[in-house]
Amino acid sequence: MSRVRALLGSQYPIIQGAMGVICNPELVAAVSEAGGFGLLATAFTEDPEFLRNQVKATKQLTDKPFGSNIFVMNPLAQKFVEVLAEGGVRVVTVSGGSPKGLIPVLHDLGIKVIVVSPTVEGAKSAEALGADAIVAEGVESGGVQGFKGVSTMVLVPIVVDAVKIPVIAAGGIGDSRGYKAVLALGAEGVQMGTRFIATKECIAHSIYKTTILDSDETGTGLVNMGRFQIRALRTSLVERLIKGEESTRPGFTRQVMEDAWIKGNLEAGLLPAGQVAGLVSDTPSVREVINEMIR
Amino acid sequence: MSRVRALLGSQYPIIQGAMGVICNPELVAAVSEAGGFGLLATAFTEDPEFLRNQVKATKQLTDKPFGSNIFVMNPLAQKFVEVLAEGGVRVVTVSGGSPKGLIPVLHDLGIKVIVVSPTVEGAKSAEALGADAIVAEGVESGGVQGFKGVSTMVLVPIVVDAVKIPVIAAGGIGDSRGYKAVLALGAEGVQMGTRFIATKECIAHSIYKTTILDSDETGTGLVNMGRFQIRALRTSLVERLIKGEESTRPGFTRQVMEDAWIKGNLEAGLLPAGQVAGLVSDTPSVREVINEMIR
Repeated sequence: MSRVRALLGSQYPIIQGAMGVICNPELVAAVSEAGGFGLLATAFTEDPEFLRNQVKATKQLTDKPFGSNIFVMNPLAQKFVEVLAEGGVRVVTVSGGSPKGLIPVLHDLGIKVIVVSPTVEGAKSAEALGADAIVAEGVESGGVQGFKGVSTMVLVPIVVDAVKIPVIAAGGIGDSRGYKAVLALGAEGVQMGTRFIATKECIAHSIYKTTILDSDETGTGLVNMGRFQIRALRTSLVERLIKGEESTRPGFTRQVMEDAWIKGNLEAGLLPAGQVAGLVSDTPSVREVINEMIR
Repeated sequence: MSRVRALLGSQYPIIQGAMGVICNPELVAAVSEAGGFGLLATAFTEDPEFLRNQVKATKQLTDKPFGSNIFVMNPLAQKFVEVLAEGGVRVVTVSGGSPKGLIPVLHDLGIKVIVVSPTVEGAKSAEALGADAIVAEGVESGGVQGFKGVSTMVLVPIVVDAVKIPVIAAGGIGDSRGYKAVLALGAEGVQMGTRFIATKECIAHSIYKTTILDSDETGTGLVNMGRFQIRALRTSLVERLIKGEESTRPGFTRQVMEDAWIKGNLEAGLLPAGQVAGLVSDTPSVREVINEMIR
C-alpha cells in the first residue's frame, strides 16, 4: 500500500475512478481532500480548454494531489496530456485501449502512468511498456468492458503474480469489506466508481443516485456497443437494448451523457454502474465513504 | 468460521464442491481426511444403490465427516435423501432449484441443510425455509449458473447483510489469498471445485486437468443449456457452441460426463471449471491444497 500512496501522493491508496461527465472539480477535490485520489475524466471531453479550466478549478478547491484519466479512444488524448502537464498533474490513469503511444510522452513530461487493464495479458504488456502501476478491473465494474471479462476475485491475484509493479483493484468494491478483501488478494490499493456516484457531492441527477440505491445485485447488465460493452443500470432502455427490442444504440457523447447522467433523462443514454450498486444503499459524503473504507 | 466448523464437524470450514461424476469416495475421503469437508455428488446419479455404495465406500476410507450434494432437478432427489440418512450423512448441500420440498424432509431426518444460492433473494428465501447455512456462489464459479450471475466480491457481502445464518463463499477461490479475501467479505467458510479437480487424487482425465492448468483467466465461457448455463473450459466444442456454430447441445447425463471428464473425450461433453482455472497451475495433493489454504 505504501508503494501506491507514494505513487499517488495521497493519504490512502483509494482512487475515485473516472466517470465521464460527473467527476467534476467539486467531486475530485472532495475525494482528494478526504485523503483519497480524485480523477478528472476526459473520455467525453471535446475541447482541451474545458480540461484546462477543470484542472484550474480543482486546484482552487484543494492543494492535495489529484489526477486525470486519459481515454485512449478519444482522438484528443495526446492534446489532453499536454494540458495536464501544464496544469501540474503528476499521475494519470490510461484506459480504453493500448497505452503504447501515451506512456513515453507522459513519462517525458514527468507524469506517472497507471494503466487500467481487464486482463493479465494487458497488465503484462503495460508493465513491459513502462507503466508505473496497474488498475486490474474486474467484469463487475461499471462502464466500459471488453467481451471476456473476469471477476475481480480471480483477476487480481493472477495479475499480482504476473507483474512486479503495484496492482490496484477495481470492480465490486463498495465498503471496507471489499477494500480488505482485495488487499488480501495482493492488491495495494482500490479504485471505486459507483460508490462515489451515490455521494452528497456528486452532481449526478437524483434519479441516477436513487436507481443505484434501489437496485439489487442483479440490477446492472452489459450492453453491446460494438467495439466494447457498457455495464449499466437496468433501466427500461437497457432492458430493451439487451433483449434486442431497441435497435438504436444510444450515442456515446458528452451531450448524451449530460442528458442522462445530470439531467436525469433515462431515455437519452445509459447510466453506467457496477454490480456493487446492489451493496450501495445510502448517499453519504465523500469523506464518510473514505472514512468507512479505512476504519 | 467456528459456526461453519461446528455445522460441518470438520477441522476447517473448507468444502469441496460437488462435481458430477468425479467426486468419488477417494476424493471425498481425501478432502475430509485433510481437514476439509468432502461432498459426494448426485446430479448425474441414476440409481440409489450407486449412492448407497458410494457412502459405504467413503466411510471405509475415512472416519471424518463428509456430506453430499442434492441436485433438485434430479427426479430421484427425495430417494437420495433417504439413502444418505440411512448411511449416516449429517450435512447436505442443496442446489439446482428451490430447496422448499427438501428442507423439512432433511430436517426430519436430522440432516443439516446448506443451500447453494447465486442470488440474495434465493439466500433470504432459503433462510426463511429453515436452511442452516448458505453457499453464496458467484458467477465466476464453474458448472451450473443462472442468467443474471453476480460476482463473489459483490454477492458475498450483500448475502452476509441479508441473512443471519452463516454464509460460505464459492466462486473464484483457489488459494489462501482467495480464502482470506472472502473471510474479509464476511463469509465464514469457502467452497471450491476447480482447485480440487487439479489434484493428484481426482480421477478426472489428465486432459481435463491439463486444460485447467493451461488455461488463462479468460479460459472459460458460459454455455446456454436452455433452463440454465454451464461455465466450462473453452474447448473447441465450447467455442463452437458459444459462437452458434454447433447446434446440438451435448447431453447432460452420467454417460456423457464420464466420457468427457474421465475418459477425456473433449467432443463428448463440456468440462466445467471456474474462471479460477487461470490461477491454478499445478496438481498437488488434496492435503497440500488445504494446507496452503489455511497457512
